[in-house]
Amino acid sequence: SVDPDRLWSAILETAAIGATPKGGLCRLALTELDGEVRRWFARQCEAIGCTVIRDDMGNMFARRAGRNPSLPPIAIGSHLDTQPTGGKFDGVIGVLAGLEVLRALHESGVETEAPIEVINWTNEEGSRFAPAMLSSGVFAGAFERDWAWARADRSGIRFGDALAEIGERGEQACGAHPLSAHFELHIEQGPILEAESRTIGIVTGVQGMRWYEATITGQEGHAGATPMRLRQDALLATARMITAIERIAADHAPDAVGTVGLIENRPNSRNVVPGEVFFTIDLRHPDDIVLEQMEAELHTAFAEACGPLRWNLERVWNNPAVRFDADCIEAVRNAADSLSLPARELVSGAGHDSAYVARVAPTSMIFVPCAGGLSHNEAESAEKDHVAAGAQVLLRAVLATDRR
Amino acid sequence: SVDPDRLWSAILETAAIGATPKGGLCRLALTELDGEVRRWFARQCEAIGCTVIRDDMGNMFARRAGRNPSLPPIAIGSHLDTQPTGGKFDGVIGVLAGLEVLRALHESGVETEAPIEVINWTNEEGSRFAPAMLSSGVFAGAFERDWAWARADRSGIRFGDALAEIGERGEQACGAHPLSAHFELHIEQGPILEAESRTIGIVTGVQGMRWYEATITGQEGHAGATPMRLRQDALLATARMITAIERIAADHAPDAVGTVGLIENRPNSRNVVPGEVFFTIDLRHPDDIVLEQMEAELHTAFAEACGPLRWNLERVWNNPAVRFDADCIEAVRNAADSLSLPARELVSGAGHDSAYVARVAPTSMIFVPCAGGLSHNEAESAEKDHVAAGAQVLLRAVLATDRR
Ligand SMILES: NC(=O)NCCC(=O)O
Ligand SMILES: NC(=O)NCCC(=O)O
Repeated sequence: SVDPDRLWSAILETAAIGATPKGGLCRLALTELDGEVRRWFARQCEAIGCTVIRDDMGNMFARRAGRNPSLPPIAIGSHLDTQPTGGKFDGVIGVLAGLEVLRALHESGVETEAPIEVINWTNEEGSRFAPAMLSSGVFAGAFERDWAWARADRSGIRFGDALAEIGERGEQACGAHPLSAHFELHIEQGPILEAESRTIGIVTGVQGMRWYEATITGQEGHAGATPMRLRQDALLATARMITAIERIAADHAPDAVGTVGLIENRPNSRNVVPGEVFFTIDLRHPDDIVLEQMEAELHTAFAEACGPLRWNLERVWNNPAVRFDADCIEAVRNAADSLSLPARELVSGAGHDSAYVARVAPTSMIFVPCAGGLSHNEAESAEKDHVAAGAQVLLRAVLATDRR
Repeated sequence: SVDPDRLWSAILETAAIGATPKGGLCRLALTELDGEVRRWFARQCEAIGCTVIRDDMGNMFARRAGRNPSLPPIAIGSHLDTQPTGGKFDGVIGVLAGLEVLRALHESGVETEAPIEVINWTNEEGSRFAPAMLSSGVFAGAFERDWAWARADRSGIRFGDALAEIGERGEQACGAHPLSAHFELHIEQGPILEAESRTIGIVTGVQGMRWYEATITGQEGHAGATPMRLRQDALLATARMITAIERIAADHAPDAVGTVGLIENRPNSRNVVPGEVFFTIDLRHPDDIVLEQMEAELHTAFAEACGPLRWNLERVWNNPAVRFDADCIEAVRNAADSLSLPARELVSGAGHDSAYVARVAPTSMIFVPCAGGLSHNEAESAEKDHVAAGAQVLLRAVLATDRR
């Protein structure tokens, strides 16, 4: 079984790499800090006899050999990158619980049939490089590698260059090898488990999500000398859109969500009527048909909010709702039951690497509660016992899958 | 009389310092480019025998001696700094018309009674360092010098340090010397003169203006996993405020204006519900009593828009409506009449250094049309003939004042 203390220590140890004053993490994908935690992870795995390789998307595969080298590995994957003001648990516990599984197997000398592979997927958050889950997406064939390399952050640095810059670009072509299964432990990032006092979420799928980039173009003008009726204020039109997006989500309550998370105003000067605004939109719903309808409403809202101003709306990401593999879901349920942990089924509101990997390998996920459902927040927090319970479920689900 | 070609050449020459691809200027206060145009200006003035001194706010005074050294100088002032996406005329023509007046006097060997002083006021725009008209404000006693030095730009660099950095901090204490009068030529930055085919605006005053800084604090959350009803979205509340500010201005139509020009969203990540937004508000009206009422409405709007979210609103600048000096206004009107130029009285919607200088010296301004009333825009444009006519009115107003 897993060692709760060792797992917790690993979490605290990595939490020092990119720690923020408010107790969170800022470890954006492919920054120097990301490089540091990646090298740390590789060292830990190699220390217990695993082989670590990187593919050309920077995905890291730490493999512990099995008895039968012809079997595709059973994978445990998540991510070590974070939001700019992220928490210590989102993604991190998934990779470190994988490391803990490797350590537990190593310590007890258990030999599995299939190799066990712990994966650190690159750029899951999508905060620095959009879209999210970029590299598991390439692995699963959802994106082309060259397209992914060309994704640029807001300062124009491209993914491929940033990856090379920190020395994490491997030789192996991303997506080259099959997996027998893929499991991922993650905090719920929502309020349900905590509210119902359950320790384990058996994740049956992931809701649909779409990302958009919008630009509204008006006309810069003097804030004192331009009469209101002559203005073409791009920020005012954007404000109307932000409230419209809230309304679209509310109209599809309770499941729909809509968010404007990023906004860039130009020229962003106190006494200039804004001439151009770039902003992003994130729409989600468990039902792709409703999501399609929300997208249609989004277009209507733009036409209304912008009036004579020019606007451009581009869908930059469409990740349809995902249903996980029945056997993997069952493996998670059985593991939770065998440990007498209070559990329930959940559909994930957040995207995860598993959502892409599910396209090429039997997959499911394990959620554990986080305080107040808070995530993408420096105050994100999870209990040691819950994380350990999740890791134990992970270990059992992996071993059960190996026996099958 | 002034030389239209020489004046226009000077405008084009300085327009190369900080030129933008779209034909405008980006010459923010106290940047290297601002230093460059300042040194250029000093050289031109010294070449025709003027003495150039800087005060400790970086204000530049280029003085041409008069017959009677005991008379305070008649000043011609404006500014050479610009908005980040500003035009070639705003402020610039005021200083360069002053230079042209000096050159015309020099060429014709005219001796004035009083010295003539052309002033380049530092940081008029208020875009890099808020508030606007900072250094004419210190000159006029509206602000303390040490307070002004401590104003910081959005990256935390303080005015006093930036001033020293470009080597433009003079010895003389700002505000030390009296002026007999102050005239300023400027583009209208509004649509009236052009619409009525008038060449000259006789500026009788400046409307009241107030600047505010606001912060709305909600709670960062996951854009996919945080249900709408549990959100505290700081950007959504800000969007409500932006539309509310438009409504406040509309409720006091046609004279009121209200603008949110600058916004900073945190953490500004596509899949994070915004936790904190900083933004600025610019409210203006010719009547200070109405402006007071608009401010009260602003407070009410915050309470409504923010609900349970915390908000902070601070008034960082209050520049009451200004009425210019009757004699100076008369001097401008007479000069326009003597040249048979179609003219009308105007109240300025934009702030100007003259608004502060008017507190300590008889002051008025001359406006010339700009295309479409467009300003604080790279497409800002004015006609050579109009600028020359304005400079000619300036010269006559100065000489008439000198004779009095
Ligand atoms: N789990 C997680 O926070 N993923 C980031 C991608 C998203 O759901 O926005
Ligand atoms: N004239 C001018 O554009 N001044 C800037 C200050 C302001 O009015 O906002």
